[in-house]
Amino acid sequence: MAETMNLKRLGEFGLVRRISDGIELPGGVAGIGDDCAVLPQKDGLSTLVSTDMLIEGVHFLTGAAPYDLGWKSAAVNLSDIAAMGGTPTGTFLAFALPPGVDTEWTDMFINGYKDVSRQFGVPLLGGDTCSSPDRLSICVTVTGECPSGTEVRRSGAGAGELVCVTGTLGDSAAGLRLLMEEKRPDAAASTLVRKHSRPQPRIPEGIGLRQAGVSAMMDISDGLASDLRHILEASGVGARIRVADIPVSEELRKVCGKYGWDPVRLALEGGEDYELLFTVKAEVEAELTIPHRVIGEITAGYGIVWEGAEGRDFSGYTHF
Amino acid sequence: MAETMNLKRLGEFGLVRRISDGIELPGGVAGIGDDCAVLPQKDGLSTLVSTDMLIEGVHFLTGAAPYDLGWKSAAVNLSDIAAMGGTPTGTFLAFALPPGVDTEWTDMFINGYKDVSRQFGVPLLGGDTCSSPDRLSICVTVTGECPSGTEVRRSGAGAGELVCVTGTLGDSAAGLRLLMEEKRPDAAASTLVRKHSRPQPRIPEGIGLRQAGVSAMMDISDGLASDLRHILEASGVGARIRVADIPVSEELRKVCGKYGWDPVRLALEGGEDYELLFTVKAEVEAELTIPHRVIGEITAGYGIVWEGAEGRDFSGYTHF
Repeated sequence: MAETMNLKRLGEFGLVRRISDGIELPGGVAGIGDDCAVLPQKDGLSTLVSTDMLIEGVHFLTGAAPYDLGWKSAAVNLSDIAAMGGTPTGTFLAFALPPGVDTEWTDMFINGYKDVSRQFGVPLLGGDTCSSPDRLSICVTVTGECPSGTEVRRSGAGAGELVCVTGTLGDSAAGLRLLMEEKRPDAAASTLVRKHSRPQPRIPEGIGLRQAGVSAMMDISDGLASDLRHILEASGVGARIRVADIPVSEELRKVCGKYGWDPVRLALEGGEDYELLFTVKAEVEAELTIPHRVIGEITAGYGIVWEGAEGRDFSGYTHF
Repeated sequence: MAETMNLKRLGEFGLVRRISDGIELPGGVAGIGDDCAVLPQKDGLSTLVSTDMLIEGVHFLTGAAPYDLGWKSAAVNLSDIAAMGGTPTGTFLAFALPPGVDTEWTDMFINGYKDVSRQFGVPLLGGDTCSSPDRLSICVTVTGECPSGTEVRRSGAGAGELVCVTGTLGDSAAGLRLLMEEKRPDAAASTLVRKHSRPQPRIPEGIGLRQAGVSAMMDISDGLASDLRHILEASGVGARIRVADIPVSEELRKVCGKYGWDPVRLALEGGEDYELLFTVKAEVEAELTIPHRVIGEITAGYGIVWEGAEGRDFSGYTHF
């Protein structure tokens, strides 16, 4: 009997497992299951590759500002290289353009794309353009490199290590909500909207954390609650997180106060922060110069204990 | 005044020029304008990268057989590596799946994708899966390698060289037309439909032609008339093509005879053959062991003279 399980039930990660099933990889090559694939070269460097698709109406709103959309298309992919501690070397942009997109739109999109790329010295090396009957689709592929064997994977977390994040969480989710609910922008709101529209990939932070010797790392794209689970599953460990220690910006507190929103839920479930989530041994953490916040510990157990939010359940973005 | 030129008038190549405008590339890196980007590594090898997007209703029919679609998604990208004489090292598959796609569909798609990949020993290394509100979008990125500086570019054609192709042309276009017009399949028609549905990337042929020292090369995806122009423009030369020498299969002749179709137009304008088009010095051609057909010569002039089809105009697939 043919299996016709619904993809919604299977979920993105079930689907990814079906795809990767039975693939034999050459020695040293790591494929599906991390932020990037890792292809060792003969010169002691590994090439990192990641690809991401962005669909109008799913990943961004119809009518999104083209400059911001271009910026974000490049930034979220550069973030995958940051997540493994790599240096980005080039990007590839494929897009399917619906009727009504003109060269003015395209120029603004490309300007946003190039501005964030230029900030990190990353050239746009190739791509593909075609027409779409209706919906804008964007697919960006990014390549990067780092010394072979030093790339920071999701699977490296060990019991007793500290769980840390860079920056503040929840800002992007609040920015999106402000946009969706068409709230009048004040200074705090504008900051949050900008964080949503023009995220900063943590490239130098990722390289610094790799060089310092952190154990496991990924970027926060689906929300802390969801992304931390990927590290725990890949590493076969659990975590205890102190909710009160999760870094939340002054702007997020202000806006949440004004509209009665829950900053904890936004910080834990809101995606698209593109901050780095990592685990690190205490003695290595003591020497870290990259700004970060310790939010909990890795445990030998299973699952996540949210200290200070007992009895509540947090999930992140699911792709189906 | 803002420029609002229509993309249809600008065309894919005008758009690509706008995108690549002002990009500064690191030494030795070649970006937009060839079948692949070329990134030299420190070990004497160059990494080749290409990306292609396939949109339902544009690049394939709604209801296309999932196995064939998976096959073709991988094959057309592997063909870009073949076009530069490279060895493929990995692929990355991103797709946005509309409602109604179940795991049976996905498994068949992946089987087709993996079968053609396995034929050339190419692992699927990563990707991205997400939902789409309506339309299936597929984006494949492929990496490959070859010794630095040996990759065969579009820009290498010189006056006096021979113009050659592998295989036969027009089969895929005829296969598509047979499918679209729902013709009853006989043996010849089935062969043509299969050539359309499961194209063979010319990987070993591309490697052999690079090693033999051909001067310029690309794969035929938009049709000979269109793709030859890319080589001529990149090389600043013209060509004289003998239409009678263009290789056409027995099956194409049969089917064209049956339905009153013009095999010359299908061979010159029909895309998706994924055969290799190359130019080569006569003394190198004399030693070639890769099966091919000489169809004309590169001239110092401009444009293409179609000998035997004077007064006719041929164009290929345009992307907008």
